[in-house]
Amino acid sequence: MSMSGGRGSRERLVVIGGDAAGMSAASQARRMRGPDELEIVAFERGHFTSYSACGIPYWVGGDVSERDELIARTPEEHRARSIDVRMRTEVTEIDVAGGRVRARDVDSGDASWTAYDKLVIATGARPIRPDMPGADAPGVHGVQTLDDGQALLDTLSRTRGRTGAAPEQRAVVVGAGYIGVEMAEALINRGFEVTVVNRGEEPMSTLDPDMGRLVHRAMEGLGITMVNDAEVTKVLTGEDGRVRAVATEDAEFPADVVVLGIGVRPETALAEAAGLPLGVRGGLLTDLAMRVRGHENIWAGGDCVEVLNLVSGQEQYVPLGTHANKHGQVIGANVGGGYATFPGVVGTAVSKVCDLEIARTGLREKDAHRVGLQYETVTIESTSRAGYYPGASPMTVKMLAERRTGRLLGVQIVGREGAAKRVDIAAVALTAGLTVEQMTALDLGYAPPFSPVWDPVLVAARKATAQVRKGALRGGTGSTR
Amino acid sequence: MSMSGGRGSRERLVVIGGDAAGMSAASQARRMRGPDELEIVAFERGHFTSYSACGIPYWVGGDVSERDELIARTPEEHRARSIDVRMRTEVTEIDVAGGRVRARDVDSGDASWTAYDKLVIATGARPIRPDMPGADAPGVHGVQTLDDGQALLDTLSRTRGRTGAAPEQRAVVVGAGYIGVEMAEALINRGFEVTVVNRGEEPMSTLDPDMGRLVHRAMEGLGITMVNDAEVTKVLTGEDGRVRAVATEDAEFPADVVVLGIGVRPETALAEAAGLPLGVRGGLLTDLAMRVRGHENIWAGGDCVEVLNLVSGQEQYVPLGTHANKHGQVIGANVGGGYATFPGVVGTAVSKVCDLEIARTGLREKDAHRVGLQYETVTIESTSRAGYYPGASPMTVKMLAERRTGRLLGVQIVGREGAAKRVDIAAVALTAGLTVEQMTALDLGYAPPFSPVWDPVLVAARKATAQVRKGALRGGTGSTR
Repeated sequence: MSMSGGRGSRERLVVIGGDAAGMSAASQARRMRGPDELEIVAFERGHFTSYSACGIPYWVGGDVSERDELIARTPEEHRARSIDVRMRTEVTEIDVAGGRVRARDVDSGDASWTAYDKLVIATGARPIRPDMPGADAPGVHGVQTLDDGQALLDTLSRTRGRTGAAPEQRAVVVGAGYIGVEMAEALINRGFEVTVVNRGEEPMSTLDPDMGRLVHRAMEGLGITMVNDAEVTKVLTGEDGRVRAVATEDAEFPADVVVLGIGVRPETALAEAAGLPLGVRGGLLTDLAMRVRGHENIWAGGDCVEVLNLVSGQEQYVPLGTHANKHGQVIGANVGGGYATFPGVVGTAVSKVCDLEIARTGLREKDAHRVGLQYETVTIESTSRAGYYPGASPMTVKMLAERRTGRLLGVQIVGREGAAKRVDIAAVALTAGLTVEQMTALDLGYAPPFSPVWDPVLVAARKATAQVRKGALRGGTGSTR
Repeated sequence: MSMSGGRGSRERLVVIGGDAAGMSAASQARRMRGPDELEIVAFERGHFTSYSACGIPYWVGGDVSERDELIARTPEEHRARSIDVRMRTEVTEIDVAGGRVRARDVDSGDASWTAYDKLVIATGARPIRPDMPGADAPGVHGVQTLDDGQALLDTLSRTRGRTGAAPEQRAVVVGAGYIGVEMAEALINRGFEVTVVNRGEEPMSTLDPDMGRLVHRAMEGLGITMVNDAEVTKVLTGEDGRVRAVATEDAEFPADVVVLGIGVRPETALAEAAGLPLGVRGGLLTDLAMRVRGHENIWAGGDCVEVLNLVSGQEQYVPLGTHANKHGQVIGANVGGGYATFPGVVGTAVSKVCDLEIARTGLREKDAHRVGLQYETVTIESTSRAGYYPGASPMTVKMLAERRTGRLLGVQIVGREGAAKRVDIAAVALTAGLTVEQMTALDLGYAPPFSPVWDPVLVAARKATAQVRKGALRGGTGSTR
């Protein structure tokens, strides 16, 4: 264990974590400050830097043919920009008072302290692994890292032809959030018979259940077996020790492979041990400049932090690559002596299962209720293009507006082509605090191949406006939800 | 000529024009007031009501197989809702002082006066027909009305096999705005060899020329011959009297059919004769409730009015079906005793030529200059999806931001799938008055099939933010455009 020293007037930035947030911060800081002013050391415990974890389902499903396509920048590329990336090196302790981190070589076990002037914590998330018998059996896979993806692909190719009795290979996906539905698509594309076992009432619990039901039906239409309201209690293994089925309280689902998609938690054990402030969801708490609260020279971003939801006014945990990249930019600008802020999120997320597109932004009904907002809700059916234009496909839009004020609170969209990115209209409107009545006048792009003459979002806004007016007529304590 | 009378306490609403604005107004007014309270009489000089003129290019091109698919509501359907639609009846005079209109049966020539309590003027637009020899020759077509579309289709089928020498049938489109490029696509789809003759420097003069150039190249890539900087001086006819070529100062372009797509003007001769206020572009001027300025009981909407551009602060003429529908809703609500306003437009428009998508919103460079705004401009290249995801296609985004304040002024996008409707992000941002720096933090939908981790609009916003900062450093009277 040795203490690095002798850096003269040059500052040292230490970055913990070599993916989106960490390496964006490092790169942005480097753009602003040359190596003579700022030394940058980045520790990454895995084999890869700056990769798209969001792309893993598409690699597993075969849409993306090579793992390396998911890598935006290799360690060598970072080093060419004078960022000292130390791979397979895990930070095991942050000494805040001493301004240093202890890092251990994963292979050799050698450890040493490295001093920092400025520290960026970008330790990401870890997948939730259920605490149940068989959860670690061969054939049970997470899909959080590229290594996870490779291991799953190895299992998929090994599984081919293994099942004696059934002609089909069977996959069970545990969880029906973004990762779950995307992995269901990937496994369908790989020719598996897919069952999704979901604890919730409907898939996509980031939607209200009435919208989740549309996803449910569409997934069944794709040949996916959906099992809702079911908790997996154990993973059953065969004589070879490999997974053979997944069991719930009531049933068993044969499985040649099991994919866990039950979400992630912030990877903040290090930060917690160092006494840094964590929120109720376990993520680091930062200020608007992404500085860890109460610590002038420590920043944090990406999947290990909580962010302010601008609609609810409360911190939220939203592990998404797009936020991680923005955090990294903001941190890098501030570390480099500039000024930038991350004002917060409105909760936008898009996904797809085969050709079904799913989008949401803002608050669900239960979110609004939880933070004390009263609201009106409407749901409309429309089409992606003018009804007479070829390829026009149905789209369902649900909209929540605050009672009385009519302020937009949230939008959920389920449909085919053109459904997902339409949610951006609502994301900007939420950011700007528009009312649904103001939205009815939005000058959105119209031509028959792209939209009905009233865009589906405008149709929803009109109906929501009428609903808010009706609610106002009902008076003080009426039937508003 | 007779004066209708004996209406008792029931009010009479007269609507001039049976398409989008007029019939939306009539329908909305009817929803709010029953026939016992409000009589509604609508005059339409043509054969159709409530149809999608924007759909005509797709009907001509064969994407839409039947004319009637473009009709949202027939005269009979309106009549079933107690709207007294009088077809083939042209209003020839508005007597504002007397509160009556004179209408003439187009076929019989019979004319009579009809009194109104409230009047809606929705007379639409008329295509600009160049004042040159041969402009009215058989084989020269406009595409403003369903009747125009039918006449063009008749010519196209007659033209088949007519040309002796050339194996290809040749079409010349005059004008390269929305109608011009959409008609070029339609005629390519019909198997014609297409030449577009355009007065401007580049096609799509609603874009800046640098963006129009991208459209130019793409159209050539589709096999369309683009002739820019060329004014058509005459239409040459053959021995049969039909069109055989189009001539410019310098050249002749053989043509079996000619389509005029050089734009439209507000159809406001009636309104002008009645002394109603017109703007500099010849459109009626209204207040925010779509009431004709200075006239308590007359409203106007659709392609015959000018609208406020919220970015330039000036009136603009924007004939688009989506605005006409909104105007109709607003007028109908106000006529029916409710309250609604149309705050204005930001200038959003989308279009396509085959798989090339074209979008714009806000101000072009010359618009900004004209209204006294100084600005910074950036152009970026990005992709529609994550670079590694199948089908990711290039997209060019140009962004204008006000100098110093950084307020967004305009966005233009040219690309393939997913380019057009991305402009809605900017349309909402313009409405809300966001700065480009505020836009860098927008929480837009991200997943690899739908967007790179930085959406192209965010990439442009980041670059524009940097440009605004640089401009600020340049100080008072520097090199900003």
